[in-house]
Amino acid sequence: MYAPRDVRVEDRPAPEIINPTDAVIRLAATCVCGSDLWDYRGINPVTQPTPMGHEYAGVVLEVGAEVTLVKPGQFVIGSFFASDGTCPNCRAGYPSSCVHREFVGGCQAEAVRVPLADGTLVATPAPPDPRHIPSLLALSDVMSTGWWAAIAAEVTPRSAVAVVGDGAVGLCGVIAARELGAGRIIVMSRHQPRQKLALEFGATDIVTDRGDDGAAAVREMTEGVGADAVLECVGTPESMQQALHSARPGGNVGFVGVPHGVQVNGAELFYSHAGLRGGPAPARRFLPDLIDRVLDGRIDPGKVFDLTLPLEEAAEAYRAMDQRRAVKVLLQP
Amino acid sequence: MYAPRDVRVEDRPAPEIINPTDAVIRLAATCVCGSDLWDYRGINPVTQPTPMGHEYAGVVLEVGAEVTLVKPGQFVIGSFFASDGTCPNCRAGYPSSCVHREFVGGCQAEAVRVPLADGTLVATPAPPDPRHIPSLLALSDVMSTGWWAAIAAEVTPRSAVAVVGDGAVGLCGVIAARELGAGRIIVMSRHQPRQKLALEFGATDIVTDRGDDGAAAVREMTEGVGADAVLECVGTPESMQQALHSARPGGNVGFVGVPHGVQVNGAELFYSHAGLRGGPAPARRFLPDLIDRVLDGRIDPGKVFDLTLPLEEAAEAYRAMDQRRAVKVLLQP
Repeated sequence: MYAPRDVRVEDRPAPEIINPTDAVIRLAATCVCGSDLWDYRGINPVTQPTPMGHEYAGVVLEVGAEVTLVKPGQFVIGSFFASDGTCPNCRAGYPSSCVHREFVGGCQAEAVRVPLADGTLVATPAPPDPRHIPSLLALSDVMSTGWWAAIAAEVTPRSAVAVVGDGAVGLCGVIAARELGAGRIIVMSRHQPRQKLALEFGATDIVTDRGDDGAAAVREMTEGVGADAVLECVGTPESMQQALHSARPGGNVGFVGVPHGVQVNGAELFYSHAGLRGGPAPARRFLPDLIDRVLDGRIDPGKVFDLTLPLEEAAEAYRAMDQRRAVKVLLQP
Repeated sequence: MYAPRDVRVEDRPAPEIINPTDAVIRLAATCVCGSDLWDYRGINPVTQPTPMGHEYAGVVLEVGAEVTLVKPGQFVIGSFFASDGTCPNCRAGYPSSCVHREFVGGCQAEAVRVPLADGTLVATPAPPDPRHIPSLLALSDVMSTGWWAAIAAEVTPRSAVAVVGDGAVGLCGVIAARELGAGRIIVMSRHQPRQKLALEFGATDIVTDRGDDGAAAVREMTEGVGADAVLECVGTPESMQQALHSARPGGNVGFVGVPHGVQVNGAELFYSHAGLRGGPAPARRFLPDLIDRVLDGRIDPGKVFDLTLPLEEAAEAYRAMDQRRAVKVLLQP
């Protein structure tokens, strides 16, 4: 990305092992993230040409001398944050706050270098069937982030869940809520194709009102008090407000949309009795379990990719997502 | 309270049953709350002469026609918020968000009317020994609030806990953390008598640094990452910041100091991975258990009362707490 709305596909030097803990992966597939649009739209500054993309799945080409758990030829999925797997935060289940974490950038490419390979990558038991690749790719961020929203919001069996945001993360949040046994899954959406996918993923109710009207609609469905668990999957002041007003006292808001301009009023949060937890998904924690769910056919988050393009057409992928013509675009290297 | 720093003790009409769900209590003891000082100091506006006090324990004098669980002659403790005990929020364990909640005001008095008596009051098994009365009174708010801070911060056995605030609530938070089995209890305090009481209540470490230096000291004691559970017992922007910076990624901040001017930056909370929950203590939820702990001699939160005065000297009680000459003052009607 050279500047907002200026995405180019160029030849770059092939990635190489730099540190002995690195691996180099040949990508089977990659994609564009909703968070990439913050840059594309000029909301996050783009000060220099930047290799984009942080979602990846593919085959290990080469590993550094200290890598012992991952081998060339294995099909692997990894988190968008590399982690050492051994620090106190990793041990506590927060690899995306690893004290040695590194962002894995430049994945919209044919190959990528992944640091801290042993702590970051998880191999599938065997080379996967190609039909599973979109869903496995989704575990790298979007599905793990939806899962994290549900975990942070403490979804348990029979929870009434509200999902704010009908983008790919929100839709994956629906999958997570269903898998965790939620009794009711209310999705806030005004877009018919997304409503349809939400219902397919397990949503039980659709609310088309927004803001406080949307929150009031959720409360009306939940004994007048609000949802047990709210998944905030957008990251704007409006969506956070809507999420907080949709939670019952004692309920929980899991917020996974990267906050832009969000301020939470302390007194309001206090009197709401809501719990609030968010952050970059600790994807690595969830990967082994989610890989099993994909390979067992229990979840199919790859369905959020409603457009597939060759990597060369990355610029069109960004345009399609920016204009909401696509929920999420898979790029085929 | 007529105005900031203008507290008078006056004869008022004796409280009477108004609604059939009311009870009238003769107070065995009452006290001044840290939150009363917000009014006393003019930070909360005082627009008209206001009966003060919301902490109470005493003997039931009279009950309304619909009260069935509480009887005249019983010694009772109740929450500062009256609750019906039956609404969805009460059933979920949040009686202080009861849809019919009423603030129980005017307890700095000889007698008080308590609404929703059946859902609000808990009787002791027998008339208590007078030496237990200060600790039972403390359950009405301050000890329940400290307990709630520890519950909201999800203290579990072996947690490393940090307590921000060495007032009566923070000190009761220490008691709660110890009872819940915390392995380490770090109290932030610069006042020697309060440090002493904190250590007596079970604190293992004292940090005298404040703000980010204090948070850094906590991180240094906790593998460099921060405490598992942080109890925010003040309610200022500075104390909330200190609390958030003291929690490890994945840790929890329970905030029980009524927030004044607190804004939480969404992006900062996001990247901290900390969980945040607060609110007025659901004291009624904790009362049966805490009454047992007091009567069994396991906890003695009455020790936070380091000054006892006759009710007539209420003005001096406020002065002593305002000037930090006393942690908390018990008033003897």
